[in-house]
This record gives sequence, C-alpha cells and structure tokens, in this order.
Amino acid sequence: MNVTLSATLAANEDIERRRRAGQRVLHLAFGEAGLPVHPELRRRLSEAGGSNSYGQVAGSPELREAVAGYWSRRGLPTDPGLVACGPGSKALLFGLMLALGGDIVLPRPSWVSYAAQAEIIGIRPIMVPAPPGEGGVPDPDLVASAVLHARAQGRTVTALLVTLPDNPTGRLARPETVRRLAELARSLDLTIISDEIYRDLVHDPIAAYTSPAEIAPERTIITSGLSKSLALGGWRIGVARLVDHHLRDRLLAVASEIWSSAAAPVQHAAAYAFTEPDELVQRVAESRRLHGIVARAVADRFVKAGASVAQPQGGFYLYPEIPGFSSSAELTATLIEEHGIGVLPGTAFGDLPAAPRVRVATSLLYGETAEQRLAALRADDPLALPWIAEALDHLERALTTLAETRHVRGGEAAFGASSHITVGAATPAW
Amino acid sequence: MNVTLSATLAANEDIERRRRAGQRVLHLAFGEAGLPVHPELRRRLSEAGGSNSYGQVAGSPELREAVAGYWSRRGLPTDPGLVACGPGSKALLFGLMLALGGDIVLPRPSWVSYAAQAEIIGIRPIMVPAPPGEGGVPDPDLVASAVLHARAQGRTVTALLVTLPDNPTGRLARPETVRRLAELARSLDLTIISDEIYRDLVHDPIAAYTSPAEIAPERTIITSGLSKSLALGGWRIGVARLVDHHLRDRLLAVASEIWSSAAAPVQHAAAYAFTEPDELVQRVAESRRLHGIVARAVADRFVKAGASVAQPQGGFYLYPEIPGFSSSAELTATLIEEHGIGVLPGTAFGDLPAAPRVRVATSLLYGETAEQRLAALRADDPLALPWIAEALDHLERALTTLAETRHVRGGEAAFGASSHITVGAATPAW
Repeated sequence: MNVTLSATLAANEDIERRRRAGQRVLHLAFGEAGLPVHPELRRRLSEAGGSNSYGQVAGSPELREAVAGYWSRRGLPTDPGLVACGPGSKALLFGLMLALGGDIVLPRPSWVSYAAQAEIIGIRPIMVPAPPGEGGVPDPDLVASAVLHARAQGRTVTALLVTLPDNPTGRLARPETVRRLAELARSLDLTIISDEIYRDLVHDPIAAYTSPAEIAPERTIITSGLSKSLALGGWRIGVARLVDHHLRDRLLAVASEIWSSAAAPVQHAAAYAFTEPDELVQRVAESRRLHGIVARAVADRFVKAGASVAQPQGGFYLYPEIPGFSSSAELTATLIEEHGIGVLPGTAFGDLPAAPRVRVATSLLYGETAEQRLAALRADDPLALPWIAEALDHLERALTTLAETRHVRGGEAAFGASSHITVGAATPAW
Repeated sequence: MNVTLSATLAANEDIERRRRAGQRVLHLAFGEAGLPVHPELRRRLSEAGGSNSYGQVAGSPELREAVAGYWSRRGLPTDPGLVACGPGSKALLFGLMLALGGDIVLPRPSWVSYAAQAEIIGIRPIMVPAPPGEGGVPDPDLVASAVLHARAQGRTVTALLVTLPDNPTGRLARPETVRRLAELARSLDLTIISDEIYRDLVHDPIAAYTSPAEIAPERTIITSGLSKSLALGGWRIGVARLVDHHLRDRLLAVASEIWSSAAAPVQHAAAYAFTEPDELVQRVAESRRLHGIVARAVADRFVKAGASVAQPQGGFYLYPEIPGFSSSAELTATLIEEHGIGVLPGTAFGDLPAAPRVRVATSLLYGETAEQRLAALRADDPLALPWIAEALDHLERALTTLAETRHVRGGEAAFGASSHITVGAATPAW
C-alpha cells in the first residue's frame, strides 16, 4: 500500500501551520463549505444528545425515509430499503469500491480521494480525460476503448464514476454526455457511481441537470451528503441510493466491519435536513448564490491575469491553467511560497504533471468567523464586504505580479498577454 | 471478498425484527453498554453544535491532549502527537490493519470484527487458542510455532492482537501471560495491538491489569474509546495510542481517505470525557459495578443449569459452554427459537463449530428506557428491580427447561447434572 495523507487535508494542515507561524495565506486549497451550521440543525443535534445506541448499519429508518423523499422529489423514486447512510459519502464511496470489487473508470481530473481509495485496496483506476470543456465525466469517445483495452489485459472492470457537478473543475457535464455515458455503461456492463454531493449547489442558472440514474436506473448508484449543501463536513454524514439488495448487503457488510454507522445524533439532525423544510431550502439557496458569485469573481481575477479557466457552474471550485510554468507542482509552490496563495496542484486530481493547472476552492473566502460567514450569506453584494474585497485584491495583486514575473523571467508570451474565459476548455490542450 | 453483515449487528437486527413481530426475546446478543448518556456529555455535544469544520484527521488538538492525559494517568506517558482518533475504535483497528499490512495473530475466540476486517482486505488471521482459563490472548505456548509455521509458508506476519479484558469471554489475561506475549512479540518482531476498550470496566476486584505497552512500549499500539465505559457506542468515537510517526502517518493516510475524522461535536464532548472529571469517573465506577453484578448473576444462572462458564472479570460478557449440543449454531438456534433468548454462537468469534459455546452479553438487561437504566445504575441491589429480576427468571426457567429437554432428548449426562464455575476454563476442552 502506497498512500499519503489526502492531498486536500495535507494542504489544509500545511496552510494552518503557515498561518500559526504568522504568514498571511489566502486559503484556496480546501473544499470546505465555509458557512455556519443552520441553528435549527444545531437544535436537532442537541435534542438527540441522548441517542447512544449503535442503531442500524444502514442508518435510522427515519433518516432513510427522509433521504428517499429527497431523491423522489428530484424525479428519482427511491425505496428507503435501498438507502444506505454512513459517516460521510467518502466512507460510502470506499465501501462501494470494496463491495463492487474490480477496477474503476475515473475522469481525469477527478476528486483526490477516488483514486487514492481505489489504490488502498488494490483497485487500479483507469483515468480517462474529461471531454473538452466538461468536467467530472470521462470522455464518452474514449471510455469504451479504455475499458476494452483493460479487459483484454485480463483486468476486471466493474464501475465508472462521474461527479455532477464536478470537483475540481466546477463544471457540470452536459445532459447529452451523461446520456451517452449511461448507455455506454449499459453496453459495457459497468455500474455507474454518480457522486452528486454538489447537486444542490449548481449555480449556473442555465445549466440543465441530468443524473445517469434517469437514463440507466438499473445500474446507477448515487452518493450524496450534507457536507457541501448545508456545510456539515465536520459532522460526517453521507448517503447512498443503491439499486439492488445484493450490493446493498455487501456494502452494509463492509460498513458493519469498518464504521458501524454515522453518529446517532448527527443522523437525527440529518433526517430533518433531508425532509427539506423551508428554512433549510432557503439556506441552501442562499449558499448556492454566494458560491456562484464568489467563484465567478475569482475566475474573473484569473482571467484578467491571462489564465485560462472554464466558467464555474457548481460547487465552489474552479480549475485555471496558468501558462509559463513547467508543472502544476511548480505553479502551486510558487503561489504559496511567493504569493501566500494556497491551492492544490492538478496532479492531486490525477492530472498530467506537466499541465500547469490548479484547483482553486473559493469557499474559505467568506470569512474567518461565523459572523463574517453569515454576513456573506446575507449580503446583497458579498464582494463588497471588506474581508472578501481584500482577499480578492490580494489574489488580483498576486496574479498580476505572477504574470509579470513570469513574463520577465521566462519570456513567456502566453501568460499575462491574453484574457479570456474558455467556456469550452476545462482541460485545454496547452 | 466474502463478508456478511457483522454477526453482532445481524443478530441485533434479527432480535429487533422478532420483537416488532411480537415475540418476547431476552436480548443477550449485543455488546451495547445499555446505559444512558451522562447529562454533562449531552451538554458538551450541544455546545459544539456549531463545529462543522473537517478538522484534523488525527482529531482535534484538545481531544488528543486529553487522551494523552488519560493514558499518562495509567502509567503510560503519551505524546499527543502519537494519538489518533476516529469514528470508533473499530475504524481505527481496520485502519491499523491496512497500515501495518501482513497477517495477524488473533486469539480464538476473539471479537467478531477482527477476523472479518482482516479478511475484507485480504489479510489472513492466524487463530491461536487462548490459554486454558484465559481469554483475549493467544496462548504464549502456541504463538511462536504458529508464526514460524506461517512464515515458513512464505506468509508475512506483522502483528499480534490482544483484548484486555476480553469480548467474548469477559476474562482478563493474567499479567504473566501478557508479559510472555510481549516478550514473544519482541523476539518475533511483531507489532502488538492491544484493544483496551473495556479496561475501565474490569469489575473483578482482585484482577491485576497489565498492558503489553508496559512491557514492550516500543511495539504496542493501544486502542480504546468511549463506547463501553461511557456508553457512547452510537456517537462513534475511538482513540489509538501509537508508537512511531511512520505508522501514524500511514494510519492517517488511510483515515483521510476513508473517514476523514470523527464527528466534530462528538470530538468536543470526548475531549471533556478523557480529562476524566469527577462526575464521569463516578459514572464509570457505577457502570462497572452494575456490569459486574449482572454479569455474575447471569453466570450463576448458567452454572445452576449445569453449564460450564469462566467467572466474568470485565465488560459485560460471559462465554458459557452447554454440553449436549452438537454445535454452537444448534445451541444458539435452540435458545432463540424455543426459549426467546438471543445470544451469539462461538463460531462468530472464530471458535470451533462443534464447541457448544455462546457469547452472552448482559448489558441490555438493565432496562428498555433511560429511566429504567438509570435506576439500575443507581440501585443498591439492581437484581431486585422488577425488570431485571424478571429477565433473570426468564433466563433461569429457559436454561432449566433446556437442560431437562436436552436430558430427555439426548440422554446427555453432562448438562443439568453438574453445577460449577470453571474459573480455569474459558475454552474448556469438552
């Protein structure tokens, strides 16, 4: 086994260390929602403080019923008996890989933990580039040959994963792409794992959402949770929508030997959240709006400095490419060492080392305190709040300096010379 | 991968189903502490309801500091930097097996999940019988040959696990046995995993506690948690005391890809608990007393009916053998089907199928409601409480009937004819 601390968490700990040492660091490296817990969820957690039974491995009946309702309201009628909950969708994804066995097709780039989880248990990910301009999906034009090639080598390929919308690119795959992938999965007999944890945070008003579960319901497992939409990352609650009892039983067998269940008081609060009461629907809407405004503002700063970045559509991420660097590692190191800007290199997401792309997470810009974050959530113009404006200025100055320095140092023409948003190029060729 | 739902959790769900169907079932199958959450812990959970950051994988500094203090007060000076927390010691044990790699020596019988966890990830447990009259430790006389034999076959053996005190037998290994095992581990270059989650629940007043960490501190990892001593099973919090940074880094790498961290509000309450304030020390003492009284009373009922059972010393378990049955499966099925008594077969703990031994967990006898459980905790004579007295009567009648029936049916002389506690025979030969 050859694993290291999750790149995201390692970067977070590094930045915290730098801050404790007195450095000023703009924290753009961590996919934490950066918003406070809604008071009603705090109340629900408190009222379940006496819940100390292990409870059912799949989660309480109350929670599974609520989760089934959540998906049913999204056009996906769901049997509570096929809902499984756990301490984060990360744990469920790991359990699913164990339960499915066999190698898995992942988009390149894709969230840091998919490939790392697979490798821990000897599963070999098959990284297939995302289609031009998209993110979170392997290119349908390349999937079949990649799978057939692996199978010809004697490998067992059982699954294909998509992230809708995506981390790291912030992009939402087009319905047509999702449809083609679902059909491919059917013809290749692959289970689809659709990670939809950012589903409720699609902030692009014209993006159309299609889950592969609508196209290939017989083979699509959906995972989700409350870490992003309701900022409950530290509470550890994830959910999965399964399609058959065989896989459910295998997943729960694994779960019962690794984590038993999600924390019972958290399950109680989550059961309330998944019923989607008005005040939480409103909270998610406010969060979505804020994420969109800030992610677009940050994208603009990169564009102004000559980077290439696909317009973010969901979550709180963007994935710019800054020419003039020989690798994402060099770019990342320069940003943190010389400009106090913490991001993650594209390589953490399985991207090619020579591609100078980084993942920028924008959600920790909302503030350092619960008060600042709440103010950001409620502001008509969050960008005018002093701490956000200042952070954006820091970023703009840094990127401008970076562009100039690179220009002087390396004589690079590309960076700092052009200025455009490449809507169709999340993974541009240059 | 060939796993099924954890035997404990499956039995629990089966019993719950039977109860919902109107059957009267005495629930002696589940290792849940069966006591309420202390109000101060509820208060601490509530006050941390706003904690929603992912936090450090190893656990908050506050929690790790408190845990280090807990072990330091037990004669084991501990560096908070070598403490790792997670959502249950079960998860940490799984992570440790992944991080260590290689096969592991387990006592036979031993807790259901050790072998199951190993098998999920392709680790082959080497089951070594406990010494006569002891439980939770492999017999030192048999360990070296088992390890050398496995190594001669090309297997990599890296670890040896002990449970002090033990589940399923309720026995605490003698200091001399622990010492011999620690020295053996050193000469065989094995890491010791010492599961000490029941340490604070040793209710035998004359039992002496020795951790292998006192004998072989350089190679002993201790796991513990609050699920048993403070009845927080459903809150999911476990802790580990590591001995070097290399293994710590590997464990945290695995943890960061599987579960990220324990729930943040739970960590906050746990940090308080591990400082061992007076009211919680008292709660643990009351719990320990109750567990001892009821476990011994249940053991007495088995003895009266002619079973052989080693006197329980810690936790809330005993491990009787009832002659006249051809297997632990037959015995377990007879108890639930004909007598409404739910227990777990010895085979769930890796014991020999033909040995008619079952694990009896006594902690769910304290009551069905928080009020009853609190009354049990506070009673001078908990056995006189009507619901506990009634349960013990149910058990006594069932065992008497069982003994008579077996006697008539099978003409077995052994069962129902003798009556003794075999202090020296947790795993008797017959």
